[in-house]
Amino acid sequence: MVSRIKNNGGKMENGVIVIGIAGGSGSGKSTMINLIKKEFDEEITIISHDFYYKCHDDIPFEERKKLNYDHPDAFDTDLMISHLRELKAGNKVNRPVYDYTVHNRKKDGTAELLPSKVVVAEGILIFENKELRDMCDIKIFIDTDADVRIVRRIVRDVNERGRSLESVIGQYLATVKPMHEQFVEPSKKYADIIVPEGGYNKVALSMIIHRIKALLSE
Amino acid sequence: MVSRIKNNGGKMENGVIVIGIAGGSGSGKSTMINLIKKEFDEEITIISHDFYYKCHDDIPFEERKKLNYDHPDAFDTDLMISHLRELKAGNKVNRPVYDYTVHNRKKDGTAELLPSKVVVAEGILIFENKELRDMCDIKIFIDTDADVRIVRRIVRDVNERGRSLESVIGQYLATVKPMHEQFVEPSKKYADIIVPEGGYNKVALSMIIHRIKALLSE
Repeated sequence: MVSRIKNNGGKMENGVIVIGIAGGSGSGKSTMINLIKKEFDEEITIISHDFYYKCHDDIPFEERKKLNYDHPDAFDTDLMISHLRELKAGNKVNRPVYDYTVHNRKKDGTAELLPSKVVVAEGILIFENKELRDMCDIKIFIDTDADVRIVRRIVRDVNERGRSLESVIGQYLATVKPMHEQFVEPSKKYADIIVPEGGYNKVALSMIIHRIKALLSE
Repeated sequence: MVSRIKNNGGKMENGVIVIGIAGGSGSGKSTMINLIKKEFDEEITIISHDFYYKCHDDIPFEERKKLNYDHPDAFDTDLMISHLRELKAGNKVNRPVYDYTVHNRKKDGTAELLPSKVVVAEGILIFENKELRDMCDIKIFIDTDADVRIVRRIVRDVNERGRSLESVIGQYLATVKPMHEQFVEPSKKYADIIVPEGGYNKVALSMIIHRIKALLSE
């Protein structure tokens, strides 16, 4: 029979399973990640692509503000991959810490990521990078209509973060939308499971939480 | 926050949970159903929309051959709904048996469907009907590219069922494709989880099987 998919059925190597969760801005990905965090607390390790925004000491603040943070080149993905490899091998890592207020990596201090049986790797672009997605045993893509995503983003950035409507919409049209269409949406085809609405989808969330529970108790 | 989804997190009523599995012809749905059957045997009940193809005693065989079997009206969905309701209430039902060789419901004989804790309702169009999809606690849509679906259908019908290439392609273009676009594809938006490639997707299959196992052991 005809099949495009070659996979190992979500089998883990070295007793560690990596669950990748990708999906566009406003898709409900963060809501899902937060609910998973709440459920498992320190039993699982969450490694976010956002931790690995590149260091930009060479560029002044006003210029850093204008960078395209939705492009794959904004991330030091190689460092994330090497950290993920360490976690899979059962080693702890010191991840960088990103400071959004200055659009740069924090100079002093890192945060510890402890190894665990279930590692969740998350970010809008984690399936875009072949090496990174190949390290994920279960690939989940959160898929939400573009209109719902921009509406959520407006509510969050205007109401909760005090940004102007014009600036939110301007950024959305200038970088978020084109990068989504160029990189995020095409990476959906690598997903094992597609979850509409992310954390707002209780049936899917429940299924994912049950799967993690079963993996932890194996 | 903005959410389109209202659901109960896959909670069962009366201790019975209904898992709906829909998706187009050639999507890998039957492969998935067969692998689920193989795993659980008589522990779960599978109710297929295809069991409920309408009785057409009033139409001669040559005319029956030409009917559109991919349209929602081809099915006695009300009967399926009433049977599903009985199964949810813990009662056994006598389902009709369809005879594909004569394109009609078998006159004599029905088959028994026994109640169980997990009922799988499956068919290309089961999410198209609001009453039927609302009875499903977990809605899974198998999503596979149209080119892969037609290729699988050709392989199956020409190689395994001895049909001519012309007849398979003719039927595909005349009814399968337009009905898919009109009814099957739009029903995807009701899914809780979308599974690319169906039974060929071992990661998703494993997740679904684990979820059913957990439900059976609750």
